[in-house]
Amino acid sequence: MTEQNNSNSSNEESQNNNNLPKVFLHVPPKFSFVLPPNPSHNFHILNPGGLPSLHQFIAADPHHASSIAAIVCSNVYPVTADLLQLLPSLRLIFTPTAGTDHVDLSECRRREIQVAGIGNLFSEDVADMAVGLLIDVSRKISAADRFLRTQLQPSSWDFPLGSKLTGKKIGIVGMGKIGSEVAKRLEAFSCKISYNSRNKKSSISHPFYSSVLELATNTNVLILCCALNDETRHIVNKQVMLALGKGGIIVNVGRGGLIDENELLRCLIDGEIGGAGLDVFENEPHVPKELFSLDNVVLSPHAAVLTSESFNGISKVVEENLKAFFSNKPLITPAMLV
Amino acid sequence: MTEQNNSNSSNEESQNNNNLPKVFLHVPPKFSFVLPPNPSHNFHILNPGGLPSLHQFIAADPHHASSIAAIVCSNVYPVTADLLQLLPSLRLIFTPTAGTDHVDLSECRRREIQVAGIGNLFSEDVADMAVGLLIDVSRKISAADRFLRTQLQPSSWDFPLGSKLTGKKIGIVGMGKIGSEVAKRLEAFSCKISYNSRNKKSSISHPFYSSVLELATNTNVLILCCALNDETRHIVNKQVMLALGKGGIIVNVGRGGLIDENELLRCLIDGEIGGAGLDVFENEPHVPKELFSLDNVVLSPHAAVLTSESFNGISKVVEENLKAFFSNKPLITPAMLV
Repeated sequence: MTEQNNSNSSNEESQNNNNLPKVFLHVPPKFSFVLPPNPSHNFHILNPGGLPSLHQFIAADPHHASSIAAIVCSNVYPVTADLLQLLPSLRLIFTPTAGTDHVDLSECRRREIQVAGIGNLFSEDVADMAVGLLIDVSRKISAADRFLRTQLQPSSWDFPLGSKLTGKKIGIVGMGKIGSEVAKRLEAFSCKISYNSRNKKSSISHPFYSSVLELATNTNVLILCCALNDETRHIVNKQVMLALGKGGIIVNVGRGGLIDENELLRCLIDGEIGGAGLDVFENEPHVPKELFSLDNVVLSPHAAVLTSESFNGISKVVEENLKAFFSNKPLITPAMLV
Repeated sequence: MTEQNNSNSSNEESQNNNNLPKVFLHVPPKFSFVLPPNPSHNFHILNPGGLPSLHQFIAADPHHASSIAAIVCSNVYPVTADLLQLLPSLRLIFTPTAGTDHVDLSECRRREIQVAGIGNLFSEDVADMAVGLLIDVSRKISAADRFLRTQLQPSSWDFPLGSKLTGKKIGIVGMGKIGSEVAKRLEAFSCKISYNSRNKKSSISHPFYSSVLELATNTNVLILCCALNDETRHIVNKQVMLALGKGGIIVNVGRGGLIDENELLRCLIDGEIGGAGLDVFENEPHVPKELFSLDNVVLSPHAAVLTSESFNGISKVVEENLKAFFSNKPLITPAMLV
């Protein structure tokens, strides 16, 4: 185990570190770049390095369990009520993700554990990816690339027509920061934007539909940018897809569980909808193999946030939130109000 | 051979058709949808249907050669000085394409043959494709799709980081209608636009560079939207690519000959530039096979204009130009001033 401590060579300072609140880095080793770059006088980082899980870490050294005041976790390891039970002193969870569906939020509320997220660090990247997937599906870009790479020197090109994007009617599901960024971009393609959200937003002038079904009925494209929770699970069901129709396209940069994936497969295979751009899946990393033979889908391995520029910014957001929390200040990017 | 004539069953009208100026449809059979839908009193269409070329048509019935006043051609069949020599009465060429590099324009000028193009019918589609290719290369969308389709049910995803698009410095080469549409779209991604064009445009507020080399030096991305001619052939050469640099991306929706393709291959393979999105190639339909193994390129079979919506609009533009021309009015969408 490696420890990032705040000491210089002085014994006195080293002693002080042991009295600082402990922050456990609960991420796979390759994610340790989220570690704040500078030591802090407010907290002390426990970085288990090679060890795969918090459970194993505690099992190896049980006295740590009660000393951990905060964890920094990724969505690879779900933060369940069982795991939280191991950490009686936990007061903060930081998750460097846009969604919090891997954290048991109701248990956090009950125990008054605060949750901080990445804020809007990834919003632009996710919006860029949503637009990229939409153009790709409409204009068959990945299919075209596959067509050229797999036909060895064809003597002529005979590639099917795509569907125009400019001017299309776009329905955005979830008009938070990501949805707004998607809208801003697609307005420049002369697209007509409508949206569905928990509530109508007074700051948004685009038409609001209180149901996704109604939104699908009135648009050519659905772009899913909302959080996954009990209200939004399978918000895109068979009825919504049939309402979107044979030329309709679904782009999902939210979470796989927003769509009834079995129905999506059937609708894609049967031509009940036109196509789909999917960055997320219902049981990741499982991708239904029926999708692999379809030319009207573009598949992406939950990569909407994967840019080097944004990843370089994560550690700063982690540091700012931890510093604020352990100085008894409000979180910089709270993900949940306790 | 099928003929679209303007007669009803009356012999008199049928006789009149023979006196109308003849318009030869010089396109592959699958392109015969460009045919004006309605008969006209101004001209008479010769549609050779299954016959592959104008040469063969004339060889089969030589008296037609001197009766053809106009041709509607695609860029599949180059309109060379040799071909023009076969048509002594030719006064108009209509090409339903954005570029005219397949037409011998200097011979047309010499003979005072007018040339009409498709105008701006495809501009939005080409701009959409340019942005789609750029997002795809930056964010590795086609590579991600290939990654998922070719890995059979991977137990975990380990896909490399892409490059953020939002905020990037974009250099547009050719600030006509297509370039302007690209600029409009990428402004909504908070990109900083600069451009190179024959002349600085007073209507464009973005920084102008009089050389492509200077543009490449000051930007992260080059998007090629200009026409191919003697001045622009290999406008992107080795020096320009080295100036663009290792993280730089080139998107070409113009013509393949704008780039020195051999140098492009070398720069991509050696990592001298970051990636490329290529809708056009120097010797179409040939695509250099060295590109097929590269994950930092996205290949498209000259598909930037291929949308059903725009293709449905072609015949109307053809009809309007032919009607105007044979009524001695100015062309609606001239491609060249004689």
